[in-house]
Amino acid sequence: MKERKITLTEKEIPEKWYNIVADMPNKPLPPLDPGTKEPIGPEALAPLFPEELILQEVSGEKWIDIPDEVRNIYSIWRPTPLYRAYNFEKALDTTVKIYYKYEGVSPVGSHKPNTAVPQAYYNKKAGTKKITTETGAGQWGSALAFACNHFGIELDVYMVRISYDQKPYRKSMMNTWGANVFSSPTNLTDAGRSILAADPDSTGSLGIAISEAVEMAATKPDVKYALGSVLNHVLTHQTVLGQEAVVQMEKAGDFPDIIVAPFGGGSNFAGISFPFLRYNLKEGKKVRAIAAEPTSCPKLTRGQFRYDFGDTIGMTPLFPMYTLGHTFVPAPIHAGGLRYHGAGVLVSQLLHDNLIEAQAVDQIESFEAGIIFAKSEGIIPAPEANHGIAVVIREAEIAKEEGINKTILFNLCGHGHFDMSAYEDYFAGKLHRHVLSDEEIDAAVSKLDTPVIE
Amino acid sequence: MKERKITLTEKEIPEKWYNIVADMPNKPLPPLDPGTKEPIGPEALAPLFPEELILQEVSGEKWIDIPDEVRNIYSIWRPTPLYRAYNFEKALDTTVKIYYKYEGVSPVGSHKPNTAVPQAYYNKKAGTKKITTETGAGQWGSALAFACNHFGIELDVYMVRISYDQKPYRKSMMNTWGANVFSSPTNLTDAGRSILAADPDSTGSLGIAISEAVEMAATKPDVKYALGSVLNHVLTHQTVLGQEAVVQMEKAGDFPDIIVAPFGGGSNFAGISFPFLRYNLKEGKKVRAIAAEPTSCPKLTRGQFRYDFGDTIGMTPLFPMYTLGHTFVPAPIHAGGLRYHGAGVLVSQLLHDNLIEAQAVDQIESFEAGIIFAKSEGIIPAPEANHGIAVVIREAEIAKEEGINKTILFNLCGHGHFDMSAYEDYFAGKLHRHVLSDEEIDAAVSKLDTPVIE
Repeated sequence: MKERKITLTEKEIPEKWYNIVADMPNKPLPPLDPGTKEPIGPEALAPLFPEELILQEVSGEKWIDIPDEVRNIYSIWRPTPLYRAYNFEKALDTTVKIYYKYEGVSPVGSHKPNTAVPQAYYNKKAGTKKITTETGAGQWGSALAFACNHFGIELDVYMVRISYDQKPYRKSMMNTWGANVFSSPTNLTDAGRSILAADPDSTGSLGIAISEAVEMAATKPDVKYALGSVLNHVLTHQTVLGQEAVVQMEKAGDFPDIIVAPFGGGSNFAGISFPFLRYNLKEGKKVRAIAAEPTSCPKLTRGQFRYDFGDTIGMTPLFPMYTLGHTFVPAPIHAGGLRYHGAGVLVSQLLHDNLIEAQAVDQIESFEAGIIFAKSEGIIPAPEANHGIAVVIREAEIAKEEGINKTILFNLCGHGHFDMSAYEDYFAGKLHRHVLSDEEIDAAVSKLDTPVIE
Repeated sequence: MKERKITLTEKEIPEKWYNIVADMPNKPLPPLDPGTKEPIGPEALAPLFPEELILQEVSGEKWIDIPDEVRNIYSIWRPTPLYRAYNFEKALDTTVKIYYKYEGVSPVGSHKPNTAVPQAYYNKKAGTKKITTETGAGQWGSALAFACNHFGIELDVYMVRISYDQKPYRKSMMNTWGANVFSSPTNLTDAGRSILAADPDSTGSLGIAISEAVEMAATKPDVKYALGSVLNHVLTHQTVLGQEAVVQMEKAGDFPDIIVAPFGGGSNFAGISFPFLRYNLKEGKKVRAIAAEPTSCPKLTRGQFRYDFGDTIGMTPLFPMYTLGHTFVPAPIHAGGLRYHGAGVLVSQLLHDNLIEAQAVDQIESFEAGIIFAKSEGIIPAPEANHGIAVVIREAEIAKEEGINKTILFNLCGHGHFDMSAYEDYFAGKLHRHVLSDEEIDAAVSKLDTPVIE
């Protein structure tokens, strides 16, 4: 029997996160104050985040210790298995070797708790009594609910009203772990009240929910805010999964030529790719890391590298990132985790420096790929993950045409058990490709008034 | 850091299933022909099952080899982890040691593929082109869809119409793996047509769906039928999980005093308990194995041991089992997997011989227990599993009162990701306890016309 899974023991949970900043040839540019356009210092983040997370956000240290308390909670589901995808390879009729890291075994079914747990931990250590956050369909909110419950921190989740009404399961999950879930816009915040005054029937948006969560945190001393992607410390926390994958690939006696991950804000992609990119930056290896974004929200492949707000309404500092403009509203594709206008600062700089690549995949191609995978490997992927799988198939086909044997590794960031309605829509022929025209891209980025970064 | 998970490698997937019949002091009584009341032989099952499964059904051999092809598919998710429930123990303020085997990591989120895979395999080997089965909410149907897809067997699932309409996610899961899912009653079978003729708006029932699936299989030579619990070979297949748990408890340097599992037809309970009961039967150990059934369907604690049909309509042979009568309709509790009128033959004989125990748990107690578990251990259990957790809490409290340290092992048979609406109803105060009155029990069993077995 050929070995399918490379498993690690609890003792092999990494003891450090990898901070790629230390190895980057060009360090990321600083965030700017939106008013003065001057670089902001760490102190500007103090109302929202505890000190240790801010230090990680601006750290240049290569390795950051993972506290034992965090490793202890990680051990509920970590280390996660790395699979050799024998059956998927067979289904593709390819000689390419394909591996995947599977993060769907976590209690919330995705990679999100990798950062939710340390964020809750550092907040607890700093005396935070309550955390606020926003969530769309609920992936991030449920991960943070899981984490806050463990550390006894109260959590208020502002959940976009349309999801709150239409996707109640994630809400029940958050309630089970003791979180308060509010249908946003609420009348609890100035931001929510102003929206409701203008439109009592507002179905909400992620931008509004962020505004509510940030307002609540910024105005109360023992309340902090947490974000599930984009920021440097979030990306760094996710490297725990890639660190495991490095060891697992070694055990498999292999090393990837290509790494693929779906791309929303960058935490999933950073998690799997940064620990391997380290070998490029330091040892001159030539791993290609490919971010798979949706054609409906193609900031990496068609956006511009310029300063922009992290949120839709414009409450955050300005970050140097690939963006379609913070007011861009992506089509309502099922991969909700990929519907973000910008890209994390670290990933943006790496892309600008040609150290990583990106490809855009439409929704139909992504589900076609996901179903080939589900039928061969037996695991039904989350819609986000399907974008990565589509790129794996493309690269396997190119390798076949070229007659070159390659090794591909991708991150199966979550299972699709909460997303079966998306598969239902696919089978019913209700999905659309959602490819943006050049005019739509131009219209989106033309709203930005910050200069393009050379 | 205390070790939380005891993990095994793929090489440690058991090579044999354990058939408890070999060690039972009183062998199970034979099934009877409903017409002649004479014992039936294996040949009576030939229209429905392939020969190798029938041989397993009547086998007296202690060990049955698990084919490499089955172990290969098992390796997608097996071995599953065994956890020491440190945080749950702490939440209960108990000195009892609690362990659980976690089957929720399978691609369908439950233990059901442990038997679906070998059933599909033996059918493939026998040349079966198509399998039919019934499913309620879809747990079993999706496990068999997963398995049939792997072996290239067509699968027709007759899904109870009310679930088909109200719980579409499992249906989409079955479709993803290529199964045909029909809303039962259909107009494809005589059984379905007769029901629809009488009531075109019938919402269906498991009994009707079984009739349709069995009719389709019985009338076509290369079509077979598959069942997800109750039968001997199904229970035997599930011992793969208990065999793993025996090794894992050894690695933990411990041995259970009490084993608990939820009880529907018996496959989950048999899976975890039989490999440990072996030590009782052969070495005189005193492991207590407790089946946790719902108070709304208390066949083990309040039913009678007598011959009864396995299905609601009365198409199967008569089996010697604890039953509430095959026409008994349990209240619509959320633990759909426990809503079965009877108990598997092997488990029934063991209970009759006082070699195992049973306790009934109402729905409210079960969810209260499940939420304590979810908040402490971080994994949200399926509603079925919550019944077992409630019994664990009871036994931990008894041990505390008695001042005795004990070791409890239970089977966490699945995650609750598909059942969050049940948790939502619990939080909304919409659940009821559903405890049957003596009159209701009497009314149910009084419909049986077979003698009670002494």
